[in-house]
Amino acid sequence: MKQPGNLYLCDMKNPLSGDTICALATPAGIGALAVIRLSGKDSFKIGAAVFKTRKGKSIEFDGIKGYTLHFGNLLNGVELIDEVLMSVFRNPHSYTGEDLLEFSCHGSIFIQQQILQLLVKQGARLAEPGEFTQRAFLNGKMDLCQAEAVADLISSSHATAHKAALQQLRGGYGSLIASLRSQLIDFASLLELELDFAEEDVEFANRDKLRELITTLLQEIRTLRESFNVGNAMKEGIPIVIAGRPNTGKSTLLNALLNDERAIVSSIAGTTRDVIEDALVIHGRKFRFMDTAGLRVSDDTIEQIGVEKTYAHAARSTICLYLCDPLQSSVPELKHELSNFQKRIGIEVKTIPVINKIDAVTSSVIEEYRTEFSDAIFISAKNQQHLDTLKDRLVGEVAIHSGDSMLVTNARHAVALAAAQEDLERLLNGIDTSLSTDLLAFECRQALHHLGEITGQIYTEDLLGNIFSKFCIGK
Amino acid sequence: MKQPGNLYLCDMKNPLSGDTICALATPAGIGALAVIRLSGKDSFKIGAAVFKTRKGKSIEFDGIKGYTLHFGNLLNGVELIDEVLMSVFRNPHSYTGEDLLEFSCHGSIFIQQQILQLLVKQGARLAEPGEFTQRAFLNGKMDLCQAEAVADLISSSHATAHKAALQQLRGGYGSLIASLRSQLIDFASLLELELDFAEEDVEFANRDKLRELITTLLQEIRTLRESFNVGNAMKEGIPIVIAGRPNTGKSTLLNALLNDERAIVSSIAGTTRDVIEDALVIHGRKFRFMDTAGLRVSDDTIEQIGVEKTYAHAARSTICLYLCDPLQSSVPELKHELSNFQKRIGIEVKTIPVINKIDAVTSSVIEEYRTEFSDAIFISAKNQQHLDTLKDRLVGEVAIHSGDSMLVTNARHAVALAAAQEDLERLLNGIDTSLSTDLLAFECRQALHHLGEITGQIYTEDLLGNIFSKFCIGK
Repeated sequence: MKQPGNLYLCDMKNPLSGDTICALATPAGIGALAVIRLSGKDSFKIGAAVFKTRKGKSIEFDGIKGYTLHFGNLLNGVELIDEVLMSVFRNPHSYTGEDLLEFSCHGSIFIQQQILQLLVKQGARLAEPGEFTQRAFLNGKMDLCQAEAVADLISSSHATAHKAALQQLRGGYGSLIASLRSQLIDFASLLELELDFAEEDVEFANRDKLRELITTLLQEIRTLRESFNVGNAMKEGIPIVIAGRPNTGKSTLLNALLNDERAIVSSIAGTTRDVIEDALVIHGRKFRFMDTAGLRVSDDTIEQIGVEKTYAHAARSTICLYLCDPLQSSVPELKHELSNFQKRIGIEVKTIPVINKIDAVTSSVIEEYRTEFSDAIFISAKNQQHLDTLKDRLVGEVAIHSGDSMLVTNARHAVALAAAQEDLERLLNGIDTSLSTDLLAFECRQALHHLGEITGQIYTEDLLGNIFSKFCIGK
Repeated sequence: MKQPGNLYLCDMKNPLSGDTICALATPAGIGALAVIRLSGKDSFKIGAAVFKTRKGKSIEFDGIKGYTLHFGNLLNGVELIDEVLMSVFRNPHSYTGEDLLEFSCHGSIFIQQQILQLLVKQGARLAEPGEFTQRAFLNGKMDLCQAEAVADLISSSHATAHKAALQQLRGGYGSLIASLRSQLIDFASLLELELDFAEEDVEFANRDKLRELITTLLQEIRTLRESFNVGNAMKEGIPIVIAGRPNTGKSTLLNALLNDERAIVSSIAGTTRDVIEDALVIHGRKFRFMDTAGLRVSDDTIEQIGVEKTYAHAARSTICLYLCDPLQSSVPELKHELSNFQKRIGIEVKTIPVINKIDAVTSSVIEEYRTEFSDAIFISAKNQQHLDTLKDRLVGEVAIHSGDSMLVTNARHAVALAAAQEDLERLLNGIDTSLSTDLLAFECRQALHHLGEITGQIYTEDLLGNIFSKFCIGK
């Protein structure tokens, strides 16, 4: 009898057959210390050849416990290269799952180079980017989602990206998908079995239970796909468009927020044409602010293209700050503008009215606007007044969007989830229309394939190459 | 009775009373991993507050062995900051001699900052540059020479500097001086004792044996002081002056050696006026090449100052490459030039005749020069011909100077050695002229002071501040 479950698994390499690789694991440059990693089947053999205790004794790696530290000398023959601290990890209890040594040496570039040369001379090879993590994946220490989370974690530059990466590293939706997928594999086996007994017209796979499982899967996939918008925004920065009529102070606000002369500011309407963008981290959340061309009908073709771009960017943003100059737009005019704007960009985008230039109007005017626009924010971009209120409001709006749920931050996962969703919808439809078993089995295999791609139960060398080449060396 | 030996020792701080310090020990920036160090009396208390095993258990540091590694989570309350590997070192068996922890975390800058903030929140303080090594010194883990060698080792960029630093780190002349100094302390005690019994006119300190010890000390000090010229040259680069008449191709040779357009080259005699200098590492040895103004009598005042500078630099260099253009100087002329040059700069400097532009003359001309100047090197700087011969020759010349002896590379040590030498010479003279005991004791105290400064048995806060402020943070 076939074992269809295995059909969907690529052959894993023999985890402990890999050659021995080495790399600098700490950032390049001079520091108090540097760490050099050595992993593979010959790690201990190489370690024994180059490491001696301070008294000049060799170390018997056979008798050494994992998770221990050893102080001693790294030697090239009789020539001392450095006094180092060596960490010993025995397979499978190491990052890569292989025998692994870490040498913590004095952080001179010369010493780092000498040690790497010594290890290569002893038979190790310089590691490719991400090769340690790739081995961890191939040796079953983590799934592909977790491996990708390692890279995300290292490049995380603010609290939300850091949190999402950590969550993913600790299992995240990877485990959920793997568990649902393994249930689907059981059904796939039964469907394949039905094919073997096709002439007898038996039904091993209970269609009701299959439908139930698919429904659960689809629900989870839809939630995850929706989270990608938030997740991706958190990683790349939550897109905030600054819009409004010309000369309402949009560029001044961008510069004030960034504390930088990022956008050209002038009193000439139509100064900004291109969308000017920069990122800012506020309370651990990354925002991408976009300054746009002022909204007006213009004869200038370039400016008109700029206005179209403003609408397009606004429609794709999470929040729009609609700037108003109270000297330009009265309360009824602003009401009209806002309504038109929201119609153009769609109701999914939250638009916040921002009344600028409050330094130029009386408090009674401000009160007028406040009465009509209860959610408006009142600032003076020029005088940097109430910018903190604006920032707090943005963080508050985004908090509503995120919460503690699992977030898909990886575009590759979003693509695979979309493909799996289509497969499963066709499969569900197939069950409902009593499609023949071979077609059901085909859709099922497709869905398993796409789900398996996420966690790496299905992978190609190309996919791995693509993922790990983006890692840093030494990880 | 007095204990004069102690008179010369500053009070050491209580080694384990220091507060707890933390710092990033790996180079700044993003890498596969980063290491954060925590040392001081509260290290384990802080460790217990922030580190939990993967199963969420706290660790009992009381029961933990030193030189062990622990995988787990760093937590700020319930908030996970990173999965880390923690190295545990118990006092006194740590780098600082204190309880010390090292956290190896994912190499994101955000995570590094979060961890440092967490440790500070728990009561640690950010370490000053070199503070870990300063504690190692104060806690008697190393003498001051060794501490300085740590900084030298980290900044070592080539083989000879690396070797000299390692030698010093492993004791080097520090232990030799400390041992001779401790013998001198015994004599100092006896001299002080004589002062207590001054009226009885007894002689506790055997003058012959004292003279013998001082003679040994002076011998060692002289050798060490001489080695400073070589040692300093190895650290800073061995000074090589390129001299010769105008238009002999000195700047062309400098550029060819450096593989760079470092000096302006033209056919106009007197193009180079300032001394142009750059360093090059050849076979692990660092050389400082200096291109100089061509030697001729000139009306140009600036050029004449340049010529004077050439002689001054040549006199201070280790080796002079005296360039000759065979089309300008005949064999007798070159002989005359060389003899004049050597007279001007002194016979201590090795001068090597370098016959340039061999591409422009026949082989019979070359033979003429070779017969007369057996140690000459024949090159074409323009065509980069035989530059390797020149480089090998330089390395060979320097090898004669260095060998495997102990080298003083530290200017502070050289100054202290010079002072101690003067003290000891006065002391020796005092013994020979039967100086009164109180004057002998005074000279002896002075010598002990200066010798003690080298290894740090005598130090001031200022001296330590001066030394350790040049260290990197985290060491």
